[in-house]
Amino acid sequence: MELGLVGLGRMGGNMRERLRRAGHTVVGYDRNPGVSDVGSLKELVERLSAPRAIWVMVPAGDPTRATVQELADLLDDGDLVIDGGNSRFTDDRQHADILAAQGVGYVDCGVSGGIWGLEVGYGLMAGGAKEHVERLMPIFDALRPEGPRDEGFVHAGGVGAGHYAKMVHNGIEYGLMQAYGEGYELLAASGIVDDIHGTLKAWSRGTVVRSWLLDLLVRALEQDPSLAEIEGYVEDSGEGRWTVEEAIRNSVPAPVITAALFARFESRQDDSPAMKAVAALRNQFGGHAVKAAGPTSGAGDTRT
Amino acid sequence: MELGLVGLGRMGGNMRERLRRAGHTVVGYDRNPGVSDVGSLKELVERLSAPRAIWVMVPAGDPTRATVQELADLLDDGDLVIDGGNSRFTDDRQHADILAAQGVGYVDCGVSGGIWGLEVGYGLMAGGAKEHVERLMPIFDALRPEGPRDEGFVHAGGVGAGHYAKMVHNGIEYGLMQAYGEGYELLAASGIVDDIHGTLKAWSRGTVVRSWLLDLLVRALEQDPSLAEIEGYVEDSGEGRWTVEEAIRNSVPAPVITAALFARFESRQDDSPAMKAVAALRNQFGGHAVKAAGPTSGAGDTRT
Amino acid sequence: MELGLVGLGRMGGNMRERLRRAGHTVVGYDRNPGVSDVGSLKELVERLSAPRAIWVMVPAGDPTRATVQELADLLDDGDLVIDGGNSRFTDDRQHADILAAQGVGYVDCGVSGGIWGLEVGYGLMAGGAKEHVERLMPIFDALRPEGPRDEGFVHAGGVGAGHYAKMVHNGIEYGLMQAYGEGYELLAASGIVDDIHGTLKAWSRGTVVRSWLLDLLVRALEQDPSLAEIEGYVEDSGEGRWTVEEAIRNSVPAPVITAALFARFESRQDDSPAMKAVAALRNQFGGHAVKAAGPTSGAGDTRT
Amino acid sequence: MELGLVGLGRMGGNMRERLRRAGHTVVGYDRNPGVSDVGSLKELVERLSAPRAIWVMVPAGDPTRATVQELADLLDDGDLVIDGGNSRFTDDRQHADILAAQGVGYVDCGVSGGIWGLEVGYGLMAGGAKEHVERLMPIFDALRPEGPRDEGFVHAGGVGAGHYAKMVHNGIEYGLMQAYGEGYELLAASGIVDDIHGTLKAWSRGTVVRSWLLDLLVRALEQDPSLAEIEGYVEDSGEGRWTVEEAIRNSVPAPVITAALFARFESRQDDSPAMKAVAALRNQFGGHAVKAAGPTSGAGDTRT
Repeated sequence: MELGLVGLGRMGGNMRERLRRAGHTVVGYDRNPGVSDVGSLKELVERLSAPRAIWVMVPAGDPTRATVQELADLLDDGDLVIDGGNSRFTDDRQHADILAAQGVGYVDCGVSGGIWGLEVGYGLMAGGAKEHVERLMPIFDALRPEGPRDEGFVHAGGVGAGHYAKMVHNGIEYGLMQAYGEGYELLAASGIVDDIHGTLKAWSRGTVVRSWLLDLLVRALEQDPSLAEIEGYVEDSGEGRWTVEEAIRNSVPAPVITAALFARFESRQDDSPAMKAVAALRNQFGGHAVKAAGPTSGAGDTRT
Repeated sequence: MELGLVGLGRMGGNMRERLRRAGHTVVGYDRNPGVSDVGSLKELVERLSAPRAIWVMVPAGDPTRATVQELADLLDDGDLVIDGGNSRFTDDRQHADILAAQGVGYVDCGVSGGIWGLEVGYGLMAGGAKEHVERLMPIFDALRPEGPRDEGFVHAGGVGAGHYAKMVHNGIEYGLMQAYGEGYELLAASGIVDDIHGTLKAWSRGTVVRSWLLDLLVRALEQDPSLAEIEGYVEDSGEGRWTVEEAIRNSVPAPVITAALFARFESRQDDSPAMKAVAALRNQFGGHAVKAAGPTSGAGDTRT
Repeated sequence: MELGLVGLGRMGGNMRERLRRAGHTVVGYDRNPGVSDVGSLKELVERLSAPRAIWVMVPAGDPTRATVQELADLLDDGDLVIDGGNSRFTDDRQHADILAAQGVGYVDCGVSGGIWGLEVGYGLMAGGAKEHVERLMPIFDALRPEGPRDEGFVHAGGVGAGHYAKMVHNGIEYGLMQAYGEGYELLAASGIVDDIHGTLKAWSRGTVVRSWLLDLLVRALEQDPSLAEIEGYVEDSGEGRWTVEEAIRNSVPAPVITAALFARFESRQDDSPAMKAVAALRNQFGGHAVKAAGPTSGAGDTRT
Repeated sequence: MELGLVGLGRMGGNMRERLRRAGHTVVGYDRNPGVSDVGSLKELVERLSAPRAIWVMVPAGDPTRATVQELADLLDDGDLVIDGGNSRFTDDRQHADILAAQGVGYVDCGVSGGIWGLEVGYGLMAGGAKEHVERLMPIFDALRPEGPRDEGFVHAGGVGAGHYAKMVHNGIEYGLMQAYGEGYELLAASGIVDDIHGTLKAWSRGTVVRSWLLDLLVRALEQDPSLAEIEGYVEDSGEGRWTVEEAIRNSVPAPVITAALFARFESRQDDSPAMKAVAALRNQFGGHAVKAAGPTSGAGDTRT
């Protein structure tokens, strides 16, 4: 079928390619003319036959909001917009309402797979009305991995459910990554296991912890056996934060996901104000040495 | 080759079967005569030709210690004992010394795979001397999953390294399971995603969180869609605790693995003394209602 | 000076009393005619001479919002409203704007002290314009504990700063309470310390952990030595949640405050969906027994 | 009464002074002749009249063990040794047995108070036999703060109970300090509260979070308003670790105390191997930029 695709970055560009390989007609638009098929959103809309379907794959927040608003003005009754970006699920209701006012349908779709999706396919979680999701099934089937449809695609619920599912997916992802990270660090610190890379690789089959993330960690250690070239500095995108916020809103204890999020915050701090305060307190009550500058020892008497 | 196997429970029994299917001669001993091939450890030893190899697969702690001690008395110079149970890595040095005094070699081997190992194979992590590990390779090759050897087996290091690797494996496992558990609970609590089972199943391929544990969770939800028949009561074996103890001994922050361990402790408490104290404090400073018995509301004024 | 006081519950009633003892003229309004000095907000406003000051002490959220809106309609240029309730700091800007449109000033004030405030005084954190805060100093001085003003009162910053400070205060409070609770539980669980109440009481002077909360815990144990009459069920008001949300918004790691919040969530769960999922997983991979109903053992083989 | 005191460091030196001020005769021994009253342990023992009482105040572990062993050889039936250092409670049974073989009694005593103890007094938690503890009451009464005895001293239980109580005290202390630290960091990060020092000081009276640690934090901020001269690098002594180990041994969830301990571990890491692994994973699946050296941005696309 015919699809408009807005945003041709790392994700959008690969998705255009995967869809074309599957025989679909994709007209892509990006602000970068070097990758764009058309010169403007307006031109994109004109190039598609009604009823149109346009997939938005731009950064969450203002860029997605602006694109949806612009499309609302350009599209007609019966057209369909899909937000495949990492929008917060609370944005979806607003986007749907803006478009509905013009008779345009809306589907939100969580997309997982990263740079591997072009070859392996993308895990998809869609939210929206049944008729809208059904219309897009040829696209979903082309993007998702081969094999049974329900192992790579779900119609998770109404508008917002797709992004909600993706948000939770990413929250879980934070926890999984941190669990492997902690285990790796302990293996490295203890000095008891000589072959750390080999140990992780031996977990690839048969063990309880086998997973795609484990395979990727083995791969990373093949390339850099002690991760010497990588700093332990980890960004977070929105989904981890939103997952914890949602956990709180729903009174759901989420200690693992939250610990993984906080570990990322810590990884980006040069010095911790909280630990300055703790060091100051120890100095106040126990006369314990505090460190003024470089990493000298400063152990001191620890009796309190 | 020929192998003695002590302990024919859920794990040992399946391992005997898998080894026999691979053409090895296994003489098994268990206190339960219904499954045992011989009537005593002594008879087991007599049935094997020197140099013997005997795999111990009994509960960690006293049972393993007693078995090792008894074998030390029965075996001869050049024989070999493998502890495939879930012993603490600190036991291995003692076991090795006891056996070495009789000229008997020792290998510790972490085994992962659970009830699936019979068909899929077991992930194996061995610790010990090179010549001992090499002698056992036919056994390891039969037990591990098919495919490249290094994806299912590792000689992790000296005596104790196998159990250490398995301990960390299980610590990671705790973290992974808890991450999925938290995500599942949030999906269930929010009411935004209608098809929770379908959502988890759609993560099976292509997504970042795909794993064997995810597949098992999907399977569990197929059998019991809201897990209504299962109580949220979770035992822990030793490895999770030992992992946290080792993290502390090595000054390694392990917030995710530890949170997963504590969640299990909490799952087994009918009432929490800590939270009794917190409730008592709120009552003391704010006059907040406390609950004396059944689950009534007791919200009260929360101003403090 | 003259003060209108809206809300005469546990907090507001005591504050009226403390202010009157200090010689101020307080006209109180409450929907409960049994405690109210006047029959309506309108009558309250009429009873005060301009420029008026009216302290709002009603539950956060809709009740406070409605009161502020009603007061905006009743008050005149030069009057002043103080929100002393537990509003989220983000509400303050809105309240200030609503009132400013009528020429009415606004101060937010975090109030701590609970049921002890009547006798001991209340810790106060004010946010707003300098001239507004200064006009209210006689009231603040009457409400705060005796002693140096800066040990019981702060003008923390602009509109919202008072509630922000109170929010963080309560977040810290959650962490402190949980720390004592965990320590208490460990003492009780270990069986090594015979005199738990005496131990906590012995910390009252001289030790690093001495605090008012510790004194209250000692008091609670005097009344109920094993806290047998209290269920470990703990509500949370908004501030703990908001503190964690703010920590996330500011990329501040807050593991202790968050753990304390989650412990409260857990304390209110009859069964944990997350732990159901974990139990289901253990059953799937290891054939570990799951608990179907009452608290039977269900340990099973833990080898994985 | 007469007391021998071994170890005249920061704690022991002040304790000698406080005991002398109270009229007791203290003979102190330290390896540092500049502060020691005698030239050897042997001389110390000779200087005291039987039945002797000797208080050991040296670092936990080997130094304490060696001192106890040496005293066992020097002392006589009816003498008494007190370990006031920060020994692990599991050492106490061994020390008691070594001494009991010579007819010498043993009391363990947790001591809190830091450098303030000289003036304010020390919080004391004693473990041992009733008759031994009673013999030492004049010493305990001189060391503890003025006021009711039970607010500064407890006979917590048998041998080991004193150090156990002190261990839990320190575990709680870790949690309290971290709670204040996190609150401080949030106030500093948000930029909404202008007067952070003033806010903490205003909590000194009347609020729920008032405590001695809060007073010390206010004091530290008076000396260094943004803690600019202190690095967020925090040592830990043994008690925090032992508390978590004991929590695990007793299946007691201790998320707050453990988070506080891990925060200290993190504070001492230049780079985190766990976060290197997480960064490597993000790079593997999403092509996210990793940081190779200095703190450049490296945000990149976060879509996964």
